[in-house]
Amino acid sequence: MTDAKPPQPLASRLPRVVDWDSNQRRVVILDQTRLPNEVVFLHCDSVADVWQAIKRLSVRGAPAIGVAAAYGVCLATREEPSVGRCYEAIDRLATSRPTAVNLFWALQRMRDAVDRATAAGEPLLASLIEEARSIHHQDRELCAAIGRYGADRLLDLPPAADTAGLTLLTHCNAGALATAGNGTALSPIYELAGRGVAVRVFADETRPLLQGSRLTAWELQQMNIPVTVLTDSMAGSLIRSGKIDAVIVGADRISAAGDAANKIGTYPLAVLARYHQIPFFVAAPHSTFDLSLANGDDIPIEHRDSDELSQGFTESTVPGGCSVYNPAFDVTPAELITAIITDLGVIDNPDAEKVLNSIGTR
Amino acid sequence: MTDAKPPQPLASRLPRVVDWDSNQRRVVILDQTRLPNEVVFLHCDSVADVWQAIKRLSVRGAPAIGVAAAYGVCLATREEPSVGRCYEAIDRLATSRPTAVNLFWALQRMRDAVDRATAAGEPLLASLIEEARSIHHQDRELCAAIGRYGADRLLDLPPAADTAGLTLLTHCNAGALATAGNGTALSPIYELAGRGVAVRVFADETRPLLQGSRLTAWELQQMNIPVTVLTDSMAGSLIRSGKIDAVIVGADRISAAGDAANKIGTYPLAVLARYHQIPFFVAAPHSTFDLSLANGDDIPIEHRDSDELSQGFTESTVPGGCSVYNPAFDVTPAELITAIITDLGVIDNPDAEKVLNSIGTR
Repeated sequence: MTDAKPPQPLASRLPRVVDWDSNQRRVVILDQTRLPNEVVFLHCDSVADVWQAIKRLSVRGAPAIGVAAAYGVCLATREEPSVGRCYEAIDRLATSRPTAVNLFWALQRMRDAVDRATAAGEPLLASLIEEARSIHHQDRELCAAIGRYGADRLLDLPPAADTAGLTLLTHCNAGALATAGNGTALSPIYELAGRGVAVRVFADETRPLLQGSRLTAWELQQMNIPVTVLTDSMAGSLIRSGKIDAVIVGADRISAAGDAANKIGTYPLAVLARYHQIPFFVAAPHSTFDLSLANGDDIPIEHRDSDELSQGFTESTVPGGCSVYNPAFDVTPAELITAIITDLGVIDNPDAEKVLNSIGTR
Repeated sequence: MTDAKPPQPLASRLPRVVDWDSNQRRVVILDQTRLPNEVVFLHCDSVADVWQAIKRLSVRGAPAIGVAAAYGVCLATREEPSVGRCYEAIDRLATSRPTAVNLFWALQRMRDAVDRATAAGEPLLASLIEEARSIHHQDRELCAAIGRYGADRLLDLPPAADTAGLTLLTHCNAGALATAGNGTALSPIYELAGRGVAVRVFADETRPLLQGSRLTAWELQQMNIPVTVLTDSMAGSLIRSGKIDAVIVGADRISAAGDAANKIGTYPLAVLARYHQIPFFVAAPHSTFDLSLANGDDIPIEHRDSDELSQGFTESTVPGGCSVYNPAFDVTPAELITAIITDLGVIDNPDAEKVLNSIGTR
């Protein structure tokens, strides 16, 4: 499982999604709500600032949320360097978004770090920064491992009849912008490109907040990967046309049975992939698994404000007083997933036993 | 097949989608691009005005396009009351949009009317207005018949386990705003409501131009039918949740085999309906059938400008230079359609033989 190959160098081409500014002792977050038109950073001086940045999706993507929250805990010590204040910060940050489990995973690590530092009588801030940096660094490594395993798995696919290289469909953004590294779903694509394989991507725009057209298309452009944007509703006929070799998406939480919660609109892609007999891959680090939940239907699904649907355009696009349904995620059951690509290896035809064997010991 | 019951009176609650102003001798078109925020009418004094109104979707929906084009031909006689100018107008209007066959059906009727008037030595304008009004009136009757057949068919469905009444999912707008009458897909809903059946509708917003959230939601609100808007990507998990009894949509062209072209995003709903074993209905008048095309894949699919995807919001949502895929329609093969509801009756499990038996003689 060890591999000396360093993660692909993205830093030169993409801004850092989240980072700790050790001079100013603050968290710096790329404001992804402003992409693709502006590259703007938020400077977070308080736990509340980080909470807000997560809540309003300035930083989003399950792994990146975990890293941002970890750094956010460090800010508690600026306000008051006490264990109680750190616990408060952890509890507060845990309320920012309900679905991505990496958030809770990272916050649990920070809680353990608080306890270890206290027990050892070590300085709180330094210990917390060290732990957050470790989570940050580890996420880069996890992404790189997903990239290698995923690239190998994608190269196993039968070659497309009519095109050289691979044409993949993705949804939302599970790329470098969603992580501290090369991404999850997009990491195998970067790895393949690095190996000289021609890869072309179709990116669902991903309503309501357009992470596909705003973020994935922008990120892939920066990385010189050919990308075409389509509305979510166009994926069906595109798959039917035979132009897509596989679908690959990220995940926000995966149950013990291998059911994956991901951005709303993922589930219909899985059904379409099955109907057209093309592979449907989920890529996620082991920290995205929540073995405490037997089934995907137990995953809490965030419902967001109706304004996200009705007010995004230049004027209201839903008549006043009309009811709006706005779940942010859906759940794809394991039986529709060809394989889950993790940092620990590929889980083909996932089920509870295989998930336990692959992830359970971590 | 005769039925004395008049069409439901919609005129009192909804503005007329298209009409001939006999005082001013011009076509009046409700500008649907301005809904739901403004009710504004376009006054079309020339064939070019009507062409433009169809092209830019001020009037849309296969039947309504046919009616608008028919009145548009009348305007040719204002410019020059000659047969040649009428033919020119017909040829010009036929280029406005390629997919909806009702356009060509209505224009063929107008061409026949030109020829009949010429042969009989009757005044051209009066003959054309009469024919256009006949198309207009007939469309109202077709819609009403679809409503009755559709309501009967929907009442045959097994009752939903957990709700009183029916919960239907629709896509785009195949309502009164898409026709000269009560609509196609929505007509059975109005008919059911008129019979006292509780009907609730989930309306896909329908990217890129949001005919579902802007038009269907507004129309259903005016008609006091409970409606909830969702993004197209949310339909999958909504169907999976068991809340939807059936999907019902319109069509822009139906092949001899029963394959139906309709607004992009219809096909994935048909796949989802099949996967979850709920019925998928297409509602369309006989004028939507194109028996000259054996298969749906022969239906020409309009591709529209990339700006429809990228520029609808307050700022660009696709990075500059990025490729965009924007087909306006997709094709649902007959094998995924539970039944086609027409003005002539219901075609269950449609195939070429049944379509020929039902439609072929008309």
